[in-house]
Formats: sequence, structure tokens, C-alpha cells
Amino acid sequence: MTTQQLTTQIHSKKSFLCIGLDVDLTKIPQHLLVSEDPIFEFNKAIIDATHDLCVSYKPNTAFYEAYGIKGWQSLQKTINYINSNYPEIFTIADAKRGDIGNTSSMYAKAFFEDLNFDSVTVAPYMGKDSVEPFLAFENKHTIMLALTSNEGAFDFQTKNIDGQELYKVVLETSKSWKNAENLMYVVGATKAEYFTEIRKIVPNSFLLVPGVGAQGGSLADVCKYGMSDNVGLLINSSRGIIYASNGTDFAEKARTEALKLQQEMAEILG
Amino acid sequence: MTTQQLTTQIHSKKSFLCIGLDVDLTKIPQHLLVSEDPIFEFNKAIIDATHDLCVSYKPNTAFYEAYGIKGWQSLQKTINYINSNYPEIFTIADAKRGDIGNTSSMYAKAFFEDLNFDSVTVAPYMGKDSVEPFLAFENKHTIMLALTSNEGAFDFQTKNIDGQELYKVVLETSKSWKNAENLMYVVGATKAEYFTEIRKIVPNSFLLVPGVGAQGGSLADVCKYGMSDNVGLLINSSRGIIYASNGTDFAEKARTEALKLQQEMAEILG
Repeated sequence: MTTQQLTTQIHSKKSFLCIGLDVDLTKIPQHLLVSEDPIFEFNKAIIDATHDLCVSYKPNTAFYEAYGIKGWQSLQKTINYINSNYPEIFTIADAKRGDIGNTSSMYAKAFFEDLNFDSVTVAPYMGKDSVEPFLAFENKHTIMLALTSNEGAFDFQTKNIDGQELYKVVLETSKSWKNAENLMYVVGATKAEYFTEIRKIVPNSFLLVPGVGAQGGSLADVCKYGMSDNVGLLINSSRGIIYASNGTDFAEKARTEALKLQQEMAEILG
Repeated sequence: MTTQQLTTQIHSKKSFLCIGLDVDLTKIPQHLLVSEDPIFEFNKAIIDATHDLCVSYKPNTAFYEAYGIKGWQSLQKTINYINSNYPEIFTIADAKRGDIGNTSSMYAKAFFEDLNFDSVTVAPYMGKDSVEPFLAFENKHTIMLALTSNEGAFDFQTKNIDGQELYKVVLETSKSWKNAENLMYVVGATKAEYFTEIRKIVPNSFLLVPGVGAQGGSLADVCKYGMSDNVGLLINSSRGIIYASNGTDFAEKARTEALKLQQEMAEILG
């Protein structure tokens, strides 16, 4: 998928919502546990109930790997279900990968070719040659961690390097990498005022923004400081939507929560 | 496994060799491709031929994920084979994971519980709360990236923060984390002179050292500057051993290469 197609979808659905599929068997409705693949059944119901309100789904690979081969099967069925039924959706493998070149190539193959995701999240610590193998894939996107929404973000990401914080050095440096136009960035919503500075460095890049909702960030503030001419934002919500209810009405309640965010977004885009 | 057990194994085998199982179907002997699970058959032969010469095996998860569910099955069979047949071996899931707290807990569950590895590699960029969930597992070890062996290491890891390079800040900061005694660190062999500085910060921690062999580092130099009282080194070699031959003699040739390194190590251990 191209970023132009993503922007078109955003305008057509009046939404830049990404729904995080962080599916934990201890949190999903108990009546699903009798099915052969509860994680997939849960995802399928959530996706069917919300696909017109969001532009992206983001399965978090940890939640699938924790269940071993069965989990990996649930992940594969989930991405296949989205690609077959809702091909307009921008899919994100939230995997936070990154390794030396030949290894990163294998991760890129895993997520872009074997699973056929549109994008994957990566960590920047190992630098240019750990990210460029992902960037080599045409019409695939590499979403690199810049400033995350957790407390630990302040351990290293905001430390000062010659007058500039590390996350800004990461943003600035990555712009010179080969096929940098395939980069997007993770920027946490809990620090909305940072978006002004970030937009000075990457004015048009898409930013994947976790931390609205469960982690306390404000949608209006993020949009005020972070929106670009092509929208340039994907706002993620996971737990606030998918665990809105743990009864038999979970999909309906997830839709209600997604609708609230979509309506706020429609107003902002309006 | 405790670090004491690891050190005991090192002295008993006169080896601190770790063999990286980065298995690429395009590089293994062609005659294996007819078997049902060529990756596992390859690993099994390598392991049977080298287990007395090394103290650790390190499957790189990317090379398994690239083959989807079949790859994950090969990984599971490999770790089960090692744990069942050679329980003294220290196993490393080279996964370079790291995410917000509840996600890191799921990764820890995946590698420590579901797959039953002794250790997993993690990336430090997201800070304390992204690593501590791994550290909470007793007698399991978390091997955090400090200074890697690739070119991109110089993009961020060696950048100066208030007079100290980022990788040193990472080492120093991590010492105050909860259960920090379960930390080990990745330090690339291509910069042996750095080990003196690193040992001032983490005098006794185990260091996993890639970059000897294919990436050009010198074993003697690493040991000269990096060895601690409890040895404290795991020297990894992947391609130099496992791809020593791509004929039917691949396991035998792998043993020859592993033996060369083990003999050098025996001499150093005196």
C-alpha cells in the first residue's frame, strides 16, 4: 500500500484510527475459550465490528508468540482474514525488530512476504544497516521507534547528544538512509507538546501514536501539534477498544468505543 | 540455569564458545532439503557434532520466523532437542525484543516459559520498564544490547551524552534496575579495545560477543581486555562454524571449526 492510498482511506472513512490487537487469553470473553482458536475468533469479531471506523489494525506479535505455534497460527489467520476481507486496511506488525543486516532481511521477509503485512515496527538502536533491509521493500513501510509512550522513554530517548535529544538525532539521522521515504515513526501521545519539535524534523512522515486512552494522552492535543498536510497520523488504541466489555457484547462495545474516537477524528478532519 | 552453573560448564569443557544457529535454507547442504524439516535436521546434526566443544547455542529467531509456522516449529524442536539431550547447555533466544511492560511480559513468557530458553536478547531503547519484565524470571538471563558489532553501532551507540557514550550510559543505567543480576550484555568483538572501558562499568557480568570470525574480531584481543574472574565471556560464532561446508560432511567440518576455537579457548583458560 502507498501512503497516498492510506491518506485516501483516511479521508474516505473520516478516521485515522488504528486498533491494536493485543489479545490476551486471560482478558477475552470466557465464552470464546471453547472455540478451537479463541484469539482468532476474538480478532475476527472485533475486525468485523470495527473495520469501517478504522484504517489500520496492529497485532502486537508478543501476544501471539506467547502462545507458541498456536499463537503464530492465530496471527497468520488474523492477517489473512484482514487482507482477504478488508484489503483497504493498512496492517502493522508491531514487532519492534532490528538486528544486523542479514538478520533484518530475514525479519523483513517474515513480516512483508510470509505474513504479508503492509508495515512493521522496528527499533533504532543498531542503526542504519539494521533498518535499511526493511526499507528496501517497495510499498511496504517501516515504523521506527522515536519517542515511546512509556516511562522508560526518559531513560535514553530524551538524553541530550550535543544539544539534541536522542530521539531527535534518531529522526534526523534516519532521513538520510536509503529509501527513507518508506519510514514512519512511533511517537507516544503522552507528550503532545513534543510533536511541534518532531514536525520540524519530519514534516510529512506518518506517525504511529500509541498512548491515547489507556496511557492517558489527549487526541485533540496530538492532532493540534502533530497533524501534517496529508494527516500523517495513525492514532492507536488497543485495550480501550478491544476490552470495552468481556461479555458476549464485546464486539458491539468495541464498536461503540471505536465510534467515539472516529467521531472525534471526523470532527478534527472536518 | 545459574551463572555459576555456566561458569562450571566453561571450566569443565574448557570452552566459552556459543554457536549461532542462523539457519538459512539457501545455505544448508542441498541433500537435507528432501527431509520434512530441513532446518531441524541441520541443527540436530550440528548440535550432535559440537555439543562437547561449546557451552551455548543461540538460534536467531529471525531465521525461523522467516519460514512462518514451519520455522517456529523448527525452533521449538531445536530448543526441545537441546534441553532434552544436552541439558547443561546455556540456550539463548537471539530475538532482540523490547516493548512496553505488559508486552515485554508476553515476550518473556514466550521465550522463558513456552520455549524454555535460558536467556533472550533484548534492545535497550525503550528503557527500564521494557526490560524489567524479563529480569523478573528467576535463573533466566536477559542479554541486553550495549555495543553491537555492525557499522550502524556508530550511528547512535557511540554518540556522546554528557561526556559518556550512549552504550556506557545504557550499561551504567541498567545496573540500578530491579533484578539487574540477571543481566548480561551484547558487546561486539570488532572493537576489542572498548572492553577495558566496559569492564570498569560491569566488571563481572557475562558478555555475549558476536563478531569473532565472519565479522573480523580477534579472540585473543577480546579475552585480553574482556575476561573477568568468572570468565564472563560467551564468544559467538555462527556462519564460520555452521557453514564450514555445504556438502554431506557439513557436521564434521563444523566440528573441525568449533574445535579450533575451543582449543584456542582452552589455551587462554590455561
